[in-house]
Amino acid sequence: MFDKLHEECGVFGIFGHPEAANLSYLGLYALQHRGQESCGIVASDGYHLKSHLGMGLVSDVFKKDDIFENLPGHAAIGHVRYSTAGGNDMKNCQPIMVDYARGSIAVAHNGNLVNAMEVRTQLENSGSIFSTTADTETIIHLIARAQSDSLIDRICESLHQVKGAYSLVFLTETRMIAVRDPNGFRPLSLGKLDGAYVVASESCAFDLIEAEFIRELDPGEMIVVDKDGMKSFSPFKETKNTPCVFEHIYFARPDSRIFGRMVYTVRKEFGHQLAREYPVDADIVIAVPDSGVPAAMGYAEEAGLPLELGLIRNHYVGRTFIEPQQSIRHFGVKLKLNPVREIIEGKKVVVIDDSIVRGTTSRKIVKMIRNAGAKEIHVRISSPPTSYPCFYGIDTPSRKELISASHSIDEINRYITSDSLGYLSIEGMHEAVTMHGDDKIGFCDACFSGEYPVKFPRLKSDKQLGLF
Amino acid sequence: MFDKLHEECGVFGIFGHPEAANLSYLGLYALQHRGQESCGIVASDGYHLKSHLGMGLVSDVFKKDDIFENLPGHAAIGHVRYSTAGGNDMKNCQPIMVDYARGSIAVAHNGNLVNAMEVRTQLENSGSIFSTTADTETIIHLIARAQSDSLIDRICESLHQVKGAYSLVFLTETRMIAVRDPNGFRPLSLGKLDGAYVVASESCAFDLIEAEFIRELDPGEMIVVDKDGMKSFSPFKETKNTPCVFEHIYFARPDSRIFGRMVYTVRKEFGHQLAREYPVDADIVIAVPDSGVPAAMGYAEEAGLPLELGLIRNHYVGRTFIEPQQSIRHFGVKLKLNPVREIIEGKKVVVIDDSIVRGTTSRKIVKMIRNAGAKEIHVRISSPPTSYPCFYGIDTPSRKELISASHSIDEINRYITSDSLGYLSIEGMHEAVTMHGDDKIGFCDACFSGEYPVKFPRLKSDKQLGLF
Amino acid sequence: MFDKLHEECGVFGIFGHPEAANLSYLGLYALQHRGQESCGIVASDGYHLKSHLGMGLVSDVFKKDDIFENLPGHAAIGHVRYSTAGGNDMKNCQPIMVDYARGSIAVAHNGNLVNAMEVRTQLENSGSIFSTTADTETIIHLIARAQSDSLIDRICESLHQVKGAYSLVFLTETRMIAVRDPNGFRPLSLGKLDGAYVVASESCAFDLIEAEFIRELDPGEMIVVDKDGMKSFSPFKETKNTPCVFEHIYFARPDSRIFGRMVYTVRKEFGHQLAREYPVDADIVIAVPDSGVPAAMGYAEEAGLPLELGLIRNHYVGRTFIEPQQSIRHFGVKLKLNPVREIIEGKKVVVIDDSIVRGTTSRKIVKMIRNAGAKEIHVRISSPPTSYPCFYGIDTPSRKELISASHSIDEINRYITSDSLGYLSIEGMHEAVTMHGDDKIGFCDACFSGEYPVKFPRLKSDKQLGLF
Amino acid sequence: MFDKLHEECGVFGIFGHPEAANLSYLGLYALQHRGQESCGIVASDGYHLKSHLGMGLVSDVFKKDDIFENLPGHAAIGHVRYSTAGGNDMKNCQPIMVDYARGSIAVAHNGNLVNAMEVRTQLENSGSIFSTTADTETIIHLIARAQSDSLIDRICESLHQVKGAYSLVFLTETRMIAVRDPNGFRPLSLGKLDGAYVVASESCAFDLIEAEFIRELDPGEMIVVDKDGMKSFSPFKETKNTPCVFEHIYFARPDSRIFGRMVYTVRKEFGHQLAREYPVDADIVIAVPDSGVPAAMGYAEEAGLPLELGLIRNHYVGRTFIEPQQSIRHFGVKLKLNPVREIIEGKKVVVIDDSIVRGTTSRKIVKMIRNAGAKEIHVRISSPPTSYPCFYGIDTPSRKELISASHSIDEINRYITSDSLGYLSIEGMHEAVTMHGDDKIGFCDACFSGEYPVKFPRLKSDKQLGLF
Repeated sequence: MFDKLHEECGVFGIFGHPEAANLSYLGLYALQHRGQESCGIVASDGYHLKSHLGMGLVSDVFKKDDIFENLPGHAAIGHVRYSTAGGNDMKNCQPIMVDYARGSIAVAHNGNLVNAMEVRTQLENSGSIFSTTADTETIIHLIARAQSDSLIDRICESLHQVKGAYSLVFLTETRMIAVRDPNGFRPLSLGKLDGAYVVASESCAFDLIEAEFIRELDPGEMIVVDKDGMKSFSPFKETKNTPCVFEHIYFARPDSRIFGRMVYTVRKEFGHQLAREYPVDADIVIAVPDSGVPAAMGYAEEAGLPLELGLIRNHYVGRTFIEPQQSIRHFGVKLKLNPVREIIEGKKVVVIDDSIVRGTTSRKIVKMIRNAGAKEIHVRISSPPTSYPCFYGIDTPSRKELISASHSIDEINRYITSDSLGYLSIEGMHEAVTMHGDDKIGFCDACFSGEYPVKFPRLKSDKQLGLF
Repeated sequence: MFDKLHEECGVFGIFGHPEAANLSYLGLYALQHRGQESCGIVASDGYHLKSHLGMGLVSDVFKKDDIFENLPGHAAIGHVRYSTAGGNDMKNCQPIMVDYARGSIAVAHNGNLVNAMEVRTQLENSGSIFSTTADTETIIHLIARAQSDSLIDRICESLHQVKGAYSLVFLTETRMIAVRDPNGFRPLSLGKLDGAYVVASESCAFDLIEAEFIRELDPGEMIVVDKDGMKSFSPFKETKNTPCVFEHIYFARPDSRIFGRMVYTVRKEFGHQLAREYPVDADIVIAVPDSGVPAAMGYAEEAGLPLELGLIRNHYVGRTFIEPQQSIRHFGVKLKLNPVREIIEGKKVVVIDDSIVRGTTSRKIVKMIRNAGAKEIHVRISSPPTSYPCFYGIDTPSRKELISASHSIDEINRYITSDSLGYLSIEGMHEAVTMHGDDKIGFCDACFSGEYPVKFPRLKSDKQLGLF
Repeated sequence: MFDKLHEECGVFGIFGHPEAANLSYLGLYALQHRGQESCGIVASDGYHLKSHLGMGLVSDVFKKDDIFENLPGHAAIGHVRYSTAGGNDMKNCQPIMVDYARGSIAVAHNGNLVNAMEVRTQLENSGSIFSTTADTETIIHLIARAQSDSLIDRICESLHQVKGAYSLVFLTETRMIAVRDPNGFRPLSLGKLDGAYVVASESCAFDLIEAEFIRELDPGEMIVVDKDGMKSFSPFKETKNTPCVFEHIYFARPDSRIFGRMVYTVRKEFGHQLAREYPVDADIVIAVPDSGVPAAMGYAEEAGLPLELGLIRNHYVGRTFIEPQQSIRHFGVKLKLNPVREIIEGKKVVVIDDSIVRGTTSRKIVKMIRNAGAKEIHVRISSPPTSYPCFYGIDTPSRKELISASHSIDEINRYITSDSLGYLSIEGMHEAVTMHGDDKIGFCDACFSGEYPVKFPRLKSDKQLGLF
Repeated sequence: MFDKLHEECGVFGIFGHPEAANLSYLGLYALQHRGQESCGIVASDGYHLKSHLGMGLVSDVFKKDDIFENLPGHAAIGHVRYSTAGGNDMKNCQPIMVDYARGSIAVAHNGNLVNAMEVRTQLENSGSIFSTTADTETIIHLIARAQSDSLIDRICESLHQVKGAYSLVFLTETRMIAVRDPNGFRPLSLGKLDGAYVVASESCAFDLIEAEFIRELDPGEMIVVDKDGMKSFSPFKETKNTPCVFEHIYFARPDSRIFGRMVYTVRKEFGHQLAREYPVDADIVIAVPDSGVPAAMGYAEEAGLPLELGLIRNHYVGRTFIEPQQSIRHFGVKLKLNPVREIIEGKKVVVIDDSIVRGTTSRKIVKMIRNAGAKEIHVRISSPPTSYPCFYGIDTPSRKELISASHSIDEINRYITSDSLGYLSIEGMHEAVTMHGDDKIGFCDACFSGEYPVKFPRLKSDKQLGLF
């Protein structure tokens, strides 16, 4: 999948390690796939919070030698962010750090609140000012205005007023608090390293710093870490657990374990299921790299067809590519992928991708493969048609840009010029993501089904906070 | 004067011109001497505010072609800032721009509030969060919480709660408001260009954009500019007018008119007065460039001595100079100034500077001139000894670093190794700055006399907001 | 293969297209894997040569909009370069462009001359000066001193004096000349686009610009392109054809066709052959991505074992990664690769890589896989032990750093802590690279066998031009 | 003088000091006014030469901490350069460093050869290649081809073949050689620091590093410094000494001593002489800062008129100023200078500048002063009309751009809209620059008189090496 849906954010936190900021840097580095636009770290030395934030990749923002000297202390939290167009400026970098009556607090947020606008309006009406367009700032205001004596209570009081998806990591001078929303939309895991507690959006961050994976936070769980250790709370009343299936389809790294399963294994199972649902008489299976590879392996395995590297990825794709002028425009996907004629020529080819958003990229890929001599091209998508926007933190285009929202599978097949097109069924997806187990979790499939597990106030186009 | 007291901020605003952001850029460029650390512009197109802020010089922060396309509209305000060590990060850039219940508002501030910490604590106690360490943010919070219906009333209500020095320019979607504190500590002038109203810290900004200078704002005056024109208000009860004499001594550009006088003329008059108070039998007068030049011209004129360019300034002094390693350190002032031996050798020299802060730089200059062969060196300072910190917006070092706070003139003379040392008297300074007129304005001379015209809460070292 | 042998250079040229510089940019972009340290383009408008060169990736060096306006004309050549440590400065960027008696000439070079030092010494003795440490400059000097009347003759005269490996592209105001050394060590292909002739190190460059692949240049062939079209010459006496087998093993992109074969197909065949030579009782096959993937696919296919993505690559590995301080050092390969425990745990694993250089990286990978729970680890290398340095353009470490030069396979197996280790045999490699055909080409296998097809003057350590 | 004639180059060298590269950096810093486009240092540790060169100011090019670690050794030479449009790329940075038969050699050059093109053509015809467009490369080629055994003889042999202006500093592994052309067009001084010999274009470089000024090199003198000390040679037959008078008028820093005189003193004397030649009934004298100040002081002194700072310079003029769009263009000189109305209003003003090139800037200044209320404006220029191009190293515009080349003084007066205009006479200039002494040196006045002391081959427009 290229240039389609985009991952949004990743969070990290560590408490109790002398190299807290360094380890946060490494953790963010491992979570870079969840957001490449900006990043930041806030560290505490027990008395003050210090921050370093910037636009760009982790390895660019934290490239000078002396940055870590300015982030001393045994605790730190970090954030990587992808944001929607228009909100991509410096002021929206996270973690957000503020002073309020009880001292300083910083927060890193992955997710999206569905009632942020309402709460913000109420807050503004009672005199709050907002410096960012992020719904995260709303949470901070609520905490600052909360009347409870203890921080934990103030956070709980505040989170009871917001609805939607959030995996949050807070840092104060002396504590780290991590919390998942009651639905458990976004992943958040707990680990341990040299006696320090670590939290991260995905377990791949633990692997890099060689922390031990302990468990995922439960939906609705809040953990508080301070010098006396870790405590767990369940401040919300129990709710249906609806983790985001798209994390498994596309967002998370294949070497991460989220929602109880290894992403790689789930993706292969999507491929198995897809092969069962949409078999085809073909010679070879090829993947759209890199995200389509595990599903393609599963499809090939189930179908008994050989998997080939029919599309080669150029790993030097820069962020600053200048499109040549005049006649030679529109290179787009060609800059990233090149078909291998010798493999494809004269073959009936199954092409596996994880999703189709606007359809334009798929159309280019099909044409490229056709030009390389394929006899037949059968596109198989390892997820159902994406027809509805996400309100829980995935940056989907608006419905009018989603080709599945307005076109039948037949029409899409004609548009992308494939010989056949098959999408994984919603049922098949649920079967696969739970590995056909009995203990079916109710994964959120709103982007496919339109059934939103957390209701939101009126749907006003372009008014929801930076969502569409 | 090198590396001593530093100017702090400059503000600019324009309403009603199709090139508002461009002209703000030019205005800030002319005010660059008032702050080199960061700058920013906020523009309004009548519906939204847009901002561009950054660390560095105006010509660096606004160097890309497309910046002005992102700052459309007929109104804009701008700010240049010098800040104290520690507070020099991105988040303290101005103008500050926020959303609140009534829309968006931006503000650029020159000055310093003396009760910012108290007000901030009250605000935090009632739930406000603070993103910056600037006392300017306090004013925004007060406005957001004010209950009055009209913006003008809300601003007045807020300003009645703060005390200290401020020249402020606000911008909303549809209005520009400029206001000087009742004491009139900091300058602020009103001009007009092609029918648009312009405000700026100093008149030199009008010269560059070819705006007509109309008048200075009165102390305590608030002007409101919108599509219907300009209105003036006097929301404060009358107070003693105490403009900052240091603006005339060092801060303002010599080609600016502030507090009713041309800065250049006042500086020459300081020199005349100094020559009358501390004459000396000498051969030549030389200035410490560039700020000492007008006073040196005045001194030479009054004393009937020739003025010579005995110290040549290197105009390529960079911001990133790397001190060479090992043996050849401590170039300091030599990188900026070089004495001309042929002029100085064998001469009795009067050296004019505008102030002495720590004494270390003066000591180096005296030694340099001595090494160039001077027979006698008589240092004359065109202001009184700086013995007290400023609480109204000048970034002075703390008292213990001010050599005059703890040493007699004799001791300073010995320390800087001059043959004689004379400071302008406080009385002489008042005489000169008012050009010996009858209508003596009560200039604030707190940094010399310790008499502070606006009282402040307890003086807690290192606790005042970013002051010391 | 990480941090081991490095590809060296890539060349590109186009004559007769109005977008020559733009297309060269795209061509270099596709050849980026052959050199990431510096790049450059020289263009001709028929009268003058213009150049743009710089340190860094193609997308960084050519990132400003106006660069191509300064590279006008219908012809251009380009170069990407990796160079050995110490020679990595600006002055060694290519194409080299000089003025000489007949006008201007530029050259882009892939390869290494074995007698460059001798020729350089002779040239210096007769008064030549050298601005770079590249042996390419030697060729330019020879051309400038050649006595023949025609440029073609001068180039031939010069090339007869040098020995070694070279694929060269020259550009003058009015002509483009491309030539491969008589042994044909380095690849060079000819293509056509809209009537313009194109040359490139690898055919993947043609794919991106949508040029038609015509054929590879023959070893020893020189082609000359000018406004009257293309002419081919064979200026050298026939020599044994010894293309570099390492291009197929590691350097070239898998989607390129070089030396008559698709790289991807050859790599899979290496895997097949390796499975026949070193079968093992195992559960899964995993590749060291990305270069080991095709051989792993071949191995798995031949062995009838499942291929799994057991090592996940982090695609955001930056060039400026700051190693954290103190205790948490030595991340090295962990930053790039992460094992997937769920796949590996309890399994007997075959790990396929394309080569082992120092052994340190392989050792880390084996440990990583062991820590992820593998029961057995069988390392299989899809090439023979690399025991000898390359003198024909591959940047190998010196012999003392090559673990195979001084250690037996058993010793290496113990060092990298694998359960078994198998290298492809030299014979098997020749069988595979020629696809078991009768028409065996005599690929150069000097880095494995020590049999160098082109002799070089005394081997003086560290004296060969920037080679070791 | 703004945007008119530009200084070209500065050279520096030191031999025998453990901080050679550091001191070169400081020396170049002091010489920055002689060239701001690029700079470089080459250092020798006795065995190898190492270089660091780059585009930009000294403080920018040498801004990273580790640069000096890569420039070890007891000897170093440096260069600052201004170059003409078109030749402003990286490859023309100096010092030029090459390898040749006898080892390595680097050279820094200030000046311009008049027969560079002829010599270059001869060299190319015998097989030399040229990497730069600088005539300095010609000298290196001649040295490489010279047949003499000793380096000194080879340099002499080479310099006998070139004609024109040059102050050169060479560095080999073990020696530093400095030489001035027989006419002595460009300055070059000798100093000493801690036993090490130092050479620099101007003595202000000695002042900064606290080296002792010994003497200027004689025209035609060559000095050779090695571990055994310094030796002086006179390899040329005696020639008329014709130092460049423009160095005194504009180029050199006022605190430098060149050609036997302090620049500041000479400039004041130009002012005295100008006042005698073109007195005027006026109220005040003002200078165009900064270069016009010493002459203005002299004029005021001689005329008995008060000198005032009527034009204030903005010291924050950036190199990257973006001209605002649309209506508010053409700020030009206003960005740099602002008139002080209070001083000028109603006055008869004498304005002193050092030269007029195109006249456009003078016209803007006159208008600015007129707008500030001047009653009369009398422009006085402290040099004769500049009517001829310089072939000896000053980057003058071509004749058609020089207003004096085609217009009478009356016409220029009308064009710049002054009330009267007076230029210093050629005779007066010679009187002043020699301080009315008997020992008149024959300063080169070719740019005023058209009498060129060193003849050049045919004058072909645009063909001379990068001159016009």
